[in-house]
Amino acid sequence: MSAIRYELIKTCAQTGARLGRVHTPHGAIDTPTFMPVGTLASVKGVSPEELKALGAQIVLSNTYHLFLRPGHELVREAGGLHKFMNWDRPILTDSGGFQVFSLSEMRKIREEGVEFRSHLNGDKLFLSPEIATNVQNALGSDIIMAFDECPPYPAEYDYVKQSTERTSRWAERCLKAHERPDEQGLFAIVQGGMFKDLRQMSARDLTSLDFPGYAVGGLSVGEPKHLMYEMLEETVPLLPSGKPRYLMGVGSPDALVEGSMRGIDMFDCVLPTRIARNGTAMTSQGRLVVKNAKYANDFGPLDPECSCYACRNYSRAYIRHLIRADEMFGLRLTSIHNLHFLVHLMEQVREAIREDRLRDFRDEFFEKYGMADNESGF
Amino acid sequence: MSAIRYELIKTCAQTGARLGRVHTPHGAIDTPTFMPVGTLASVKGVSPEELKALGAQIVLSNTYHLFLRPGHELVREAGGLHKFMNWDRPILTDSGGFQVFSLSEMRKIREEGVEFRSHLNGDKLFLSPEIATNVQNALGSDIIMAFDECPPYPAEYDYVKQSTERTSRWAERCLKAHERPDEQGLFAIVQGGMFKDLRQMSARDLTSLDFPGYAVGGLSVGEPKHLMYEMLEETVPLLPSGKPRYLMGVGSPDALVEGSMRGIDMFDCVLPTRIARNGTAMTSQGRLVVKNAKYANDFGPLDPECSCYACRNYSRAYIRHLIRADEMFGLRLTSIHNLHFLVHLMEQVREAIREDRLRDFRDEFFEKYGMADNESGF
Repeated sequence: MSAIRYELIKTCAQTGARLGRVHTPHGAIDTPTFMPVGTLASVKGVSPEELKALGAQIVLSNTYHLFLRPGHELVREAGGLHKFMNWDRPILTDSGGFQVFSLSEMRKIREEGVEFRSHLNGDKLFLSPEIATNVQNALGSDIIMAFDECPPYPAEYDYVKQSTERTSRWAERCLKAHERPDEQGLFAIVQGGMFKDLRQMSARDLTSLDFPGYAVGGLSVGEPKHLMYEMLEETVPLLPSGKPRYLMGVGSPDALVEGSMRGIDMFDCVLPTRIARNGTAMTSQGRLVVKNAKYANDFGPLDPECSCYACRNYSRAYIRHLIRADEMFGLRLTSIHNLHFLVHLMEQVREAIREDRLRDFRDEFFEKYGMADNESGF
Repeated sequence: MSAIRYELIKTCAQTGARLGRVHTPHGAIDTPTFMPVGTLASVKGVSPEELKALGAQIVLSNTYHLFLRPGHELVREAGGLHKFMNWDRPILTDSGGFQVFSLSEMRKIREEGVEFRSHLNGDKLFLSPEIATNVQNALGSDIIMAFDECPPYPAEYDYVKQSTERTSRWAERCLKAHERPDEQGLFAIVQGGMFKDLRQMSARDLTSLDFPGYAVGGLSVGEPKHLMYEMLEETVPLLPSGKPRYLMGVGSPDALVEGSMRGIDMFDCVLPTRIARNGTAMTSQGRLVVKNAKYANDFGPLDPECSCYACRNYSRAYIRHLIRADEMFGLRLTSIHNLHFLVHLMEQVREAIREDRLRDFRDEFFEKYGMADNESGF
């Protein structure tokens, strides 16, 4: 019995979008969904109660970071990640693959795994499909990810082919190493860079093994968005309709809508909390840099259409003051607001799917939100 | 009709402590009380809802800091400090006097007021009794403080005498400049350094004018604690029993108890939040530096006797992990805990006064808390 079960409620008649639910040991998630990122077992500045109040149903945490500190054995000893961080809803952990390739230093990739140095203190460390899986077994997250290599963009065809084949072999090793399949669902990650045939090969290889869910990795790595959407259109139809589909590292409002239209069920990204800490709010009218001088005497909320805690109680002028004065509470308010914005956007996406009008919703949203953001990476 | 009214409920038979209530335009405060400090219109890292949940009845904000940024006119335009910071309970603002003398640069004291340079950008600024009062009129706090000079420790008798006389003249000017006496209560500040006769002179001069409350300033400035208590014993009996008495800048647990025993009703200090941000918790067993390695695998709460949000939900191991990783949420948890500790301590002090056993409570508390802290400034 798999720990994860996908329930398809309906498909949008206007698009390929799916309304569904992902059932996990810690409850169900309505999909399509956006997952806030709590890298080090905390969504920066936001409490579990605040996450629930803004509508978050699941959070993501990073295996690489927790492996470095406080260490997965400590989390195991604490009773697992849910108890450690006081979050009783579903948790997804990534495998550490992406961070090993993007953050660590002096990495050496071998068939066995990856040797690297900690970005914190230079310690020599090693992660393999088996270790990454067992670390996630110790963390106890509901959804765990296979250890993969995420090729950079741009990359040569031959390198990506070799890497994608290895990622498939590694996925199979993760499946074998997985110690808690009844409690944690292991998702495989489709790679293949920007090459359609390699995406197809990866999807075919991985779906030949019976994973409870599939992610699309290696996108949103610097390529133009139309290329990301092309790759999705090439990949998603090859994934089994009875399993959840997760587009990794994507969190710009436009890409959440476009990804949903192409059949994606789950998204995550540090974008909303990262730009929040820089004083930028996502609003129904597009980006708002609340630090700007023009908001000094603006006593309206960040977003007049928003019902989040920050918008109900605080003005742009107050939040600007706090952020300029390096007051923690300012970053908390913008973080809560941005997470609420994306979580609420996904509620609207689900509603539009239910009513078979996601394409219309997309057009209306983009017109209001500003197409300028569509290619900006925001 | 004064904005502030003091209601004496009873005096402790074992000590000089008073159980009472201070009535303000934004509700009543049970005294003796500890006031959390929200320097820049935010108690660092803690929301108004969290302050209420931990039992805070009043907060203090700093006029000097708000005068510099965002500026009192902006706060006035926002509808006052309560609305600006979303706090509907009482607020006390200091006068900026202490900060002008401790933080600013190149200050020149004249009878008219103090010229100084902003510690932020070097701007040349001027504060006088009239300006400091009118700035606080713009902020709209329930209790405002007279503009005073706080002499350093140690200081020469002649200097302190001159300064204390000026502080009394300034207090009278504040009273005249005060534009909203029906909505805001202006407290005078007794100075006089460590000289008994100057303390007496200051108390006599100020009580000859009818202020709705009196503060004792110029203590906890580096002198040994026994000297502070001597000065209190010299000063407090000269203050009218029908008005609240506020000991400024004092927040170590032992001094809160000792001050209450000597008839003080109100206290404030940045200590609990400042040491919280450094990873130090106040607990029923004394200080706990949660960053220390020995707490890495400690899955108990910061204080086993505490019922605050942090202690109910998070372990020392988790909080240590967050603080070591520079996660904002860790500082929020230690800040909530320390504020709860002091607010709860004052609840216990009030209960002990009610039962005429504050001296017994003091002895029991110190035995458990550790007398080592008694002279340490913690």
